[in-house]
Amino acid sequence: MNAVKRKFILDCDSGTDDAQALMMVLAQPDIELLAVMTVFGNANCDKTSRNCLRILKFKNRLDIPVYKGSDKGLIGDIPFTSNYHGYDGLGDIHIEGVDPIDIDLIQKEHAPVALVRLVNENPNQITLVATGPLTNIALALHLDPQFGTKLHDIYVMGGNTEGQGNVTPSAEFNFYTDPEAAYFVLNSIGKMINLCSMEVCERHGFSWEWYEKFTDGKTRSSCLVRDFEHSLITREKQKGIAKSYIMVWDQLTMASAIKKDLLIQSVNVYATVELHGMHTRGQLIVDWKKKQNKHQPNVRLLQQFNQAMFDSLIHMVTKD
Amino acid sequence: MNAVKRKFILDCDSGTDDAQALMMVLAQPDIELLAVMTVFGNANCDKTSRNCLRILKFKNRLDIPVYKGSDKGLIGDIPFTSNYHGYDGLGDIHIEGVDPIDIDLIQKEHAPVALVRLVNENPNQITLVATGPLTNIALALHLDPQFGTKLHDIYVMGGNTEGQGNVTPSAEFNFYTDPEAAYFVLNSIGKMINLCSMEVCERHGFSWEWYEKFTDGKTRSSCLVRDFEHSLITREKQKGIAKSYIMVWDQLTMASAIKKDLLIQSVNVYATVELHGMHTRGQLIVDWKKKQNKHQPNVRLLQQFNQAMFDSLIHMVTKD
Amino acid sequence: MNAVKRKFILDCDSGTDDAQALMMVLAQPDIELLAVMTVFGNANCDKTSRNCLRILKFKNRLDIPVYKGSDKGLIGDIPFTSNYHGYDGLGDIHIEGVDPIDIDLIQKEHAPVALVRLVNENPNQITLVATGPLTNIALALHLDPQFGTKLHDIYVMGGNTEGQGNVTPSAEFNFYTDPEAAYFVLNSIGKMINLCSMEVCERHGFSWEWYEKFTDGKTRSSCLVRDFEHSLITREKQKGIAKSYIMVWDQLTMASAIKKDLLIQSVNVYATVELHGMHTRGQLIVDWKKKQNKHQPNVRLLQQFNQAMFDSLIHMVTKD
Amino acid sequence: MNAVKRKFILDCDSGTDDAQALMMVLAQPDIELLAVMTVFGNANCDKTSRNCLRILKFKNRLDIPVYKGSDKGLIGDIPFTSNYHGYDGLGDIHIEGVDPIDIDLIQKEHAPVALVRLVNENPNQITLVATGPLTNIALALHLDPQFGTKLHDIYVMGGNTEGQGNVTPSAEFNFYTDPEAAYFVLNSIGKMINLCSMEVCERHGFSWEWYEKFTDGKTRSSCLVRDFEHSLITREKQKGIAKSYIMVWDQLTMASAIKKDLLIQSVNVYATVELHGMHTRGQLIVDWKKKQNKHQPNVRLLQQFNQAMFDSLIHMVTKD
Repeated sequence: MNAVKRKFILDCDSGTDDAQALMMVLAQPDIELLAVMTVFGNANCDKTSRNCLRILKFKNRLDIPVYKGSDKGLIGDIPFTSNYHGYDGLGDIHIEGVDPIDIDLIQKEHAPVALVRLVNENPNQITLVATGPLTNIALALHLDPQFGTKLHDIYVMGGNTEGQGNVTPSAEFNFYTDPEAAYFVLNSIGKMINLCSMEVCERHGFSWEWYEKFTDGKTRSSCLVRDFEHSLITREKQKGIAKSYIMVWDQLTMASAIKKDLLIQSVNVYATVELHGMHTRGQLIVDWKKKQNKHQPNVRLLQQFNQAMFDSLIHMVTKD
Repeated sequence: MNAVKRKFILDCDSGTDDAQALMMVLAQPDIELLAVMTVFGNANCDKTSRNCLRILKFKNRLDIPVYKGSDKGLIGDIPFTSNYHGYDGLGDIHIEGVDPIDIDLIQKEHAPVALVRLVNENPNQITLVATGPLTNIALALHLDPQFGTKLHDIYVMGGNTEGQGNVTPSAEFNFYTDPEAAYFVLNSIGKMINLCSMEVCERHGFSWEWYEKFTDGKTRSSCLVRDFEHSLITREKQKGIAKSYIMVWDQLTMASAIKKDLLIQSVNVYATVELHGMHTRGQLIVDWKKKQNKHQPNVRLLQQFNQAMFDSLIHMVTKD
Repeated sequence: MNAVKRKFILDCDSGTDDAQALMMVLAQPDIELLAVMTVFGNANCDKTSRNCLRILKFKNRLDIPVYKGSDKGLIGDIPFTSNYHGYDGLGDIHIEGVDPIDIDLIQKEHAPVALVRLVNENPNQITLVATGPLTNIALALHLDPQFGTKLHDIYVMGGNTEGQGNVTPSAEFNFYTDPEAAYFVLNSIGKMINLCSMEVCERHGFSWEWYEKFTDGKTRSSCLVRDFEHSLITREKQKGIAKSYIMVWDQLTMASAIKKDLLIQSVNVYATVELHGMHTRGQLIVDWKKKQNKHQPNVRLLQQFNQAMFDSLIHMVTKD
Repeated sequence: MNAVKRKFILDCDSGTDDAQALMMVLAQPDIELLAVMTVFGNANCDKTSRNCLRILKFKNRLDIPVYKGSDKGLIGDIPFTSNYHGYDGLGDIHIEGVDPIDIDLIQKEHAPVALVRLVNENPNQITLVATGPLTNIALALHLDPQFGTKLHDIYVMGGNTEGQGNVTPSAEFNFYTDPEAAYFVLNSIGKMINLCSMEVCERHGFSWEWYEKFTDGKTRSSCLVRDFEHSLITREKQKGIAKSYIMVWDQLTMASAIKKDLLIQSVNVYATVELHGMHTRGQLIVDWKKKQNKHQPNVRLLQQFNQAMFDSLIHMVTKD
């Protein structure tokens, strides 16, 4: 096959769900993953970098470079990172045959600089998928103001649209963790952003029964996912399983970028991010009723996906 | 019948929907409406006072006193009022046998002062229904810090909970118009507030067919509602009837106060109001996930009502 | 003497300096003090009310009514009060022949209601001197929007203009304690406010030597001041006397209202109050360079006084 | 002479005063200017880059590289730049023998990337002088979190400390133009910042008589300064010369970096920048009274200089 492959870059804060998004894109025969960029979020940037390298080594794909990015938000006011995905950001497990990972494998070039270089080397060809805070993208946009318009397209997991946050009463984790970056990227990238809000992600979760099969251990990857998700899943179940389903946010975002047919419904809107509220810092603001009509739509809100098709796609994570 | 009647006070910014809420409570044989308090909002306070007097005169109930309240929010920074309900706040019509109204009928006592007096004269007996900005209630609470605990109960129309405002991308009209009052009342009244958010109100609208019958002109009141809603309804229809239903927000709030059985579902939460955002000023903040667990629930969010029962109750507006 | 006396009202959060301001106005033969209004600040409102009654009893002037006002700021978000002036707000002393004071002497009418009544009974005749948070004035302005224009004049101690606050890095105590009230009064009172900022007050302090003589105990009042200032002064001296002078802020503000000739320099400006900053809530904002030229001057910033004349006037506090 | 020269980098938004700061450092025999970084501010970044090249060409020093930096603040919300220094940022003049300048002389490397490289190539050796918005420094700090600690020292012109801004009632131009950058640099650089606030700069201006001599045209440089300052000076004089002196802010900042003996008085404080106020966005916040004592001092506020020594130094701008 000589067909030209599509070119992807993943910018993530891996994270067990980012790890699955990475495994998903690695499994696509028609996609070339040019690089993985890392950012703080689910863990600090040393850890998220290491986690990406671990997944790549596990998949025998250390040919793909990992660039380390920012360890702080644009104004650096959120000193902590979450331990939701474990202290190391990937379930605190030992991966046989992988660990310990050699962190010298991290590229010397800083992620935003590499982003700018790669996008200029591959103008209008790169699909950028961002599943963590948007810090690296914001910095790339500062280094090259035309960065956004040189992308083929961009998919972002972040923000909430229905009045309930997951980290504060009003804000979603990725946007809350670096509100200034989210604000700057949304307002200045000059390219329509395909946005998977937390609500659309929640609506496309899977049942626990589904998850049992997904992690039945019949493949190496299935074992890996089962292991690195183990403590998080156990903790969720101990909480009484408030939710009857498992969330696969970053996986959905990657899937939506991989397969355009997945999308059933979307709407183009102007959206921005609240920076100044006492309670609402980091909240996505959608101008639903076009009250701020000086602004053109900058975001394609992805609203509904074909769940069966997503089911097929997510199974590529654990196919071997 | 010597049964003791329940005692109500309506605090409103009439407004065609407030007017119907007033007509609804007047039609209850077991309820004594002690007073009507007026506030700015749908029009300035002179106009909303006049409108309440007009409805009372139309219903031959000028025995009920009207107290004029605030013409500005607590910090006075929103200089305008909406003309959504017409320039006079009641559809800009002439009401035969009513107009012109004698504005000397407005009581000399200022609304918050009268509120405090009436509540102290009738401790633990008064149901307060507020369908406009909460300015008067906030001022009453300043004049008497125990004001709230001396109420029997309180029903408020205001706020939004699902991420879409009606006056800004994030805020609902009543709370946006005086965010400080809403903040102060929610945080300091010391009494659980029964809150009809704009979403629960939207979910309990009626169809246009229903509205045609409701305003079929078979009673004096039906004619009046038809007339004062005429220009608003016409304007809505010209917009292409984005909504397939008519909104009856203040009517629902009054109905929920009149008939407890109406309520099917509610949840007790801590809620407050954003004062400081660039985009989110006036937004209701609900601590859905109890992330601010230093706070006890202060709001009973009313979430679902018996629509058939509400249908019966709203028909009392136009029964004669 | 049949000359008509000037009419004053003092609104204060007494406070040892408010107490002296009260003693100063009581000593003016040509001024009738109509009433004392109390507000929270240096202590809660029960205590500041009690302190005013104590001073009046000490001066044998219980004929002057004391009206209790607000115990919370306009939005009620500052739950504490300072203990800078002692736990009881007046140096925690026993005043022989005065204590205990009968708190039933507090009037039943709430301070803002009384303010509105008195100003309407004496239109354009009252000089209002406010030496605490502006909560009562804000409420009075809500109850009667023309309240301000019916005053003869108004003198306020509050705000800072040179970039250093005394309670936060940016804000002065009185304005910080109720920023919304300060904002509303400045923007809506409709009457030029004579403002003594903390800087002008600091510039007109007296030396410690001066203070020794002022409190030499040669009069009853001199003894009283010496006693109720004792612990505060001792504490200040233990800090190492960072300042080489004693501050007499409320006394200066009262003096400026009593004697117009005291003023040497002033400037008319537009000024408002920051409500929304993370660091600057409560800061006075002066439009020095007329950058917000849509606004007319609303504040007369008092900038320099005749110190010798002030010295004479402040000695009336302890004259007998 | 084999003595090792001190190494400087200038980051500026030239600007007629930045231009003089550049001319001053070029005149120092013991200082090697490694590079000039440009940023938006007095004009957009194309213009400020061009202006720096023009000065270098005029001084026959095109061997010094000019790196173009950011054209937007960290969150990009201030779309405009000032025209105070002329539409081209340098008095809108034609410089004989210099203009037009070849803009291909601008380096291809982006300023923050070059900053990081140069500082790593010369660890602990570089004095960084920043006379414009701090955007480039903030970005460099993101690309290399240890950037600050690898500097020899840093001098910044920006912020105000005495309650009067020059671009808003509360904020100084450089910090207002990119508040997030100023906030991030102050809080995260990890190196004490030598700060020339607008007040210390104002206090060290020179008289108009002095300026006449300074620009008497007896040297090429004196003619140049006279010409590029002409329209600005004329405009200031037409305003009625509110100020009896000429401001030389960036020149003073550069002078303070060149000659340590210039400094007479300074104080170490914790300082930060207000991001969220309605009126105070961009205001420098100094914790004068150590109320935020969790924070160590991060800023050395330069408070007084030897004016005679500064006079000597500034004359090097026009010495030939």
